Amino acid sequence: MTNNLQNNAINALRFLSADAVQQANSGHPGLPMGAAAMAYTLWTRHLRHNPRNPRWPGRDRFILSGGHGSMLLYSLLHLTGYDLPLDQLKNFRQWDSLTPGHPEYGLTPGVEMTTGPLGQGFATGVGMAIAGAHLSATFDRPGFELMDSYIYGIVTDGDLMEGVSAEAASLAGHLSLGRLIYLYDDNHISIDGSTDLAFTEDRAARFGAYNWHVQKVADGNDVEAIDQAIQAAKTDPRPSLILCRTTIGFGAPNKQGTSKAHGEPLGEEELKLAKENLGWPVEPKFHLPEDALAHYREALERGGKAEAEWKDKFAAYQRLHPAQGAELQRRLDGELPGDWDAELPVFPTDAKGLASRVVSGKAINALALKLPELIGGSADLEPSNKTWIADSPAFTKETPEGRNFHFGVREHAVGAILNGMALFGAVIPYGGTFLVFSDYMKPAIRIAALSHIPAIYVFTHDSIGLGEDGPTHQPIEHLAALRAVPNLNVIRPADANETVEAWKVAIRRRNGPTALALSRQNLPTLDRSLADAAAELAKGAYVLSDFGEGQPELILMASGSEVSLVYQAAAKLAAEGLNVRAVSFPSWELFEAQDEAYREAVLPKRVRARLAVEAGAGQGWERYVGFEGDILSMERFGASAPAKVLFEKFGFTVENVIAKAKDVLASRSEG
Amino acid sequence: MTNNLQNNAINALRFLSADAVQQANSGHPGLPMGAAAMAYTLWTRHLRHNPRNPRWPGRDRFILSGGHGSMLLYSLLHLTGYDLPLDQLKNFRQWDSLTPGHPEYGLTPGVEMTTGPLGQGFATGVGMAIAGAHLSATFDRPGFELMDSYIYGIVTDGDLMEGVSAEAASLAGHLSLGRLIYLYDDNHISIDGSTDLAFTEDRAARFGAYNWHVQKVADGNDVEAIDQAIQAAKTDPRPSLILCRTTIGFGAPNKQGTSKAHGEPLGEEELKLAKENLGWPVEPKFHLPEDALAHYREALERGGKAEAEWKDKFAAYQRLHPAQGAELQRRLDGELPGDWDAELPVFPTDAKGLASRVVSGKAINALALKLPELIGGSADLEPSNKTWIADSPAFTKETPEGRNFHFGVREHAVGAILNGMALFGAVIPYGGTFLVFSDYMKPAIRIAALSHIPAIYVFTHDSIGLGEDGPTHQPIEHLAALRAVPNLNVIRPADANETVEAWKVAIRRRNGPTALALSRQNLPTLDRSLADAAAELAKGAYVLSDFGEGQPELILMASGSEVSLVYQAAAKLAAEGLNVRAVSFPSWELFEAQDEAYREAVLPKRVRARLAVEAGAGQGWERYVGFEGDILSMERFGASAPAKVLFEKFGFTVENVIAKAKDVLASRSEG
Repeated sequence: MTNNLQNNAINALRFLSADAVQQANSGHPGLPMGAAAMAYTLWTRHLRHNPRNPRWPGRDRFILSGGHGSMLLYSLLHLTGYDLPLDQLKNFRQWDSLTPGHPEYGLTPGVEMTTGPLGQGFATGVGMAIAGAHLSATFDRPGFELMDSYIYGIVTDGDLMEGVSAEAASLAGHLSLGRLIYLYDDNHISIDGSTDLAFTEDRAARFGAYNWHVQKVADGNDVEAIDQAIQAAKTDPRPSLILCRTTIGFGAPNKQGTSKAHGEPLGEEELKLAKENLGWPVEPKFHLPEDALAHYREALERGGKAEAEWKDKFAAYQRLHPAQGAELQRRLDGELPGDWDAELPVFPTDAKGLASRVVSGKAINALALKLPELIGGSADLEPSNKTWIADSPAFTKETPEGRNFHFGVREHAVGAILNGMALFGAVIPYGGTFLVFSDYMKPAIRIAALSHIPAIYVFTHDSIGLGEDGPTHQPIEHLAALRAVPNLNVIRPADANETVEAWKVAIRRRNGPTALALSRQNLPTLDRSLADAAAELAKGAYVLSDFGEGQPELILMASGSEVSLVYQAAAKLAAEGLNVRAVSFPSWELFEAQDEAYREAVLPKRVRARLAVEAGAGQGWERYVGFEGDILSMERFGASAPAKVLFEKFGFTVENVIAKAKDVLASRSEG
Repeated sequence: MTNNLQNNAINALRFLSADAVQQANSGHPGLPMGAAAMAYTLWTRHLRHNPRNPRWPGRDRFILSGGHGSMLLYSLLHLTGYDLPLDQLKNFRQWDSLTPGHPEYGLTPGVEMTTGPLGQGFATGVGMAIAGAHLSATFDRPGFELMDSYIYGIVTDGDLMEGVSAEAASLAGHLSLGRLIYLYDDNHISIDGSTDLAFTEDRAARFGAYNWHVQKVADGNDVEAIDQAIQAAKTDPRPSLILCRTTIGFGAPNKQGTSKAHGEPLGEEELKLAKENLGWPVEPKFHLPEDALAHYREALERGGKAEAEWKDKFAAYQRLHPAQGAELQRRLDGELPGDWDAELPVFPTDAKGLASRVVSGKAINALALKLPELIGGSADLEPSNKTWIADSPAFTKETPEGRNFHFGVREHAVGAILNGMALFGAVIPYGGTFLVFSDYMKPAIRIAALSHIPAIYVFTHDSIGLGEDGPTHQPIEHLAALRAVPNLNVIRPADANETVEAWKVAIRRRNGPTALALSRQNLPTLDRSLADAAAELAKGAYVLSDFGEGQPELILMASGSEVSLVYQAAAKLAAEGLNVRAVSFPSWELFEAQDEAYREAVLPKRVRARLAVEAGAGQGWERYVGFEGDILSMERFGASAPAKVLFEKFGFTVENVIAKAKDVLASRSEG
């Protein structure tokens, strides 16, 4: 290895990136140019990966948490031999390319997660490290280290400023996630200018306080110093932060070290000067010295060999520990065992009923018996969220085989950690908090939906039914807000049996997240001689019962705790001679996925007298009730009082449902 | 002061709180019992307040960030003589009481902010301290310290775990907010159990790294030690954290120091034992020794005197500095000057137009000339959000008179800080980020809406029009999510003149927050000979133009950047002989606030052929288009490409609007 080759290799990262940004006339050249040496050192000397198989389970993970520097990652992927041709780099940020403005998981081979919203990458890596530690503790045996991946990341000033990374860092230190190693691109520049404008905390001391192993590299272009720091990080039992003092836009003579190099192309002239400055040919664009390319492509042989060795080890493991080997294989393949839902309970009709959060706790435990990959916990609300798996310890540094997580009061980190766990693979993660605090978690939920990550959210206390804690803790807009997210399934089950079915739907779903909205209060267990929740919940909405003799002239629909209200109201209206359909409507997304015929069968177009009842914002129910229907909903914040009082005061009673339904019928006959 | 009296006074806090929780059979006794001595020391020896005038501008502020300990605050308010009778404490957590489960601003006299969602109180106090420092720098003169309030708080483990407090703490240390003093109720217990389960970071070292003044009090019941620490904090130029080692549920012999004392009543038996343990009469409940009450009520005389002195000082200030005095009075009164909107620009018709974010920047600067109380900034996106006020420096520790804020990449803290600024008073705060990152800020937005706080959010890059940054940065569900929040006004102006009007509406609104959704891309400035944006935007929706000769048979409606599409489409459809109404629909909330006659005039019931166009999730537009209309919207995540390409690919073109409109008309004639 000559210094010249090394310089060429590093400059190749810089100028592939800067050329692509210039060609797109959009993007962030500064991070790739400043962090190129860090990335080079990590990718050529440490990162265990096989570009020919981006899904090899034994690989290390790399996260570019500052996703705006995406061209650095695309350059690395191209150079080391992933299926990402140079033409894709030339199409940076263009329609239908594999090189979008920020890295997208599932789109580009080798991209381990979707980044861009700052802090998410940092916190998601913590989840990956947790999953790795858990799987290693569960499956690895002396001499058979199969799941011992390192989680590497490049993190930025913006990442460290975001609260979600603070939450995740504190937990990572607490859990002593030793295989988590972050290189901090300490370039002193953010979009507004110098970090001195807003970010003068002592980062090293802060991470020390979190129980991280902290090192400083004075010159972020010093490959040997970076290398040594990574080596030291790998042997330290704590998570590691390596502060590398870098220069944003390194090489651009007039823009380096300033915010002008951050978020816009250098410009043709400055790009030319930068190339001249670093001894790089100005033309052609996207120049790649053959020796530099060959040097990077050594990753193919190295990676192929590493994967082959891993496979041999895994094969030997499977011979020595056949049951464990088969189980690990199954989990890596993401396949459920045939009898995974065999232990799930069925609940008899019961007027008193159960809180759906309690049933959810039972479902988790029934599933956990058959699905050792089911792991999860709560953001310090375990006694309320009912998320504990019996007979398993908590995940701690002493007991990483534990399946229960004390996440602390860190909802946002929980969302990101679930993403990381699921992305790592071989686990099915869930996390709980109150539905109202889904707000705190939302940016991570969005990443899950966008990245097709099957996280499961256990959102309990799903309405004013929460009672005395009052409006700060009572969700109003949250169902509407979550339903508006593309590719997020929201399910609000009406009773015990629907809750069990909701969990089944959530477990089966492997291409996106599921949010379960669960009650604090008891819900009557509905009479299942009338409609089979087991068969129907998965369709999102179904006819619970048609009351009366003739074709329905009125449809009452509701989700969750309000279903029993419309059920009772429908029965009473039928007693007055009306033909009334009661529809349980636990999930808009599942219903919209049904064919037109099914939807028409449940909600026939000719029946325009409709009432939707939900103890939350009504927004969106108009889709199902139209101009001629009505919605009984919460169009204000709640209040502090016992739940029963609140339901009465806000009109969620059988009597008021009946009155509203009659109003709907009356206005139709008038109209 | 005898030790006995002091003990009685502290125990009065404990048992008023525990009795109320027991009576409500709901609530959190542990915090009040553990933190009673801290609260006693602060409220009797330091807090400058006048219970007879909770709105006295010269008062210190007190925030109970762990709002679940609300009974501690209600006890303090009752005892020191606020208008909160004992009967209210006996009605804790009941319908219509002034003592809800968590403190609510605007409901209970003396409650300075709504707390409960953890971290919010902590971060909001930072905003109060910023506003105080700014106003002090702007108005105070030697010998006339009028705005030199301290901001005190009691913060908890949960507060310190939340990311929002980490963001705010880092900024507070950076800004050296010396008048911010937090007592940390370091009780080692959260809901799940010991903080050792999830929270073992070195909190003192962490806050030291943030540039805070950190002190420890070994015994959280040691009044003298707490007193000395507060005294030291008051003279230190940095924000202060005083870690007080406390015992949750202090006094309850079987539950203290455990999570059993956290979130549920002690139970009659344990409460009896606690009273016996601390030498308190078991009966009657809500016992108040006269000497303890009298001791607390000294706050009335002390506070009355302090306010009188402050008023004298203010009167003298007004004589000496009449202009400044009048200005401070105006701002404290929250009154706008008569000519506040005189400098706002009017824009001529212009096909090329301007980005609404650019116009927003012009509006901010035009308003800033007349409204010195307008202050704000961006979460490190100033060049994009256009939030800078020319001719004013940034707010820094050296220039606290600055009106511009470098908040850093800390969206969540921005939301909370705006709340704190507005609650402090005499400023009108705004904060900017991309609309997609409203997710990060949402919990604070909710507090604003619930607390009637007039924060203004400058959310730019409001659709796929953001372009190349791609789906991580393109809002989809965000307009729907924000619209679902009660008491939040969302305004998405269509052009330059609507943008100016949107700012006027936002400035005028003093009883709740306003979110402005602004485009990255240029928007044509519409022809205002047809409809006067100035008169109409405030109504939420208005007829831009009726094209054709007769009564409208089709209504096209849109918000923001899509208004020009429906406008052009309507004109072209009219050229084909149709009568088409084009409606600009910038704000659902403003429209819903109009009377039925106006709404009917804009959207006549008889016109059922309707098309809504918005480059975001369609959820909720059904309310305005009904079963027979249609919505052209984004029902998936976006993509990375130039904005023009995205608008074409996703169908936001005049041609596609026309095609969809014809489909609507056709399906009606079929039906």
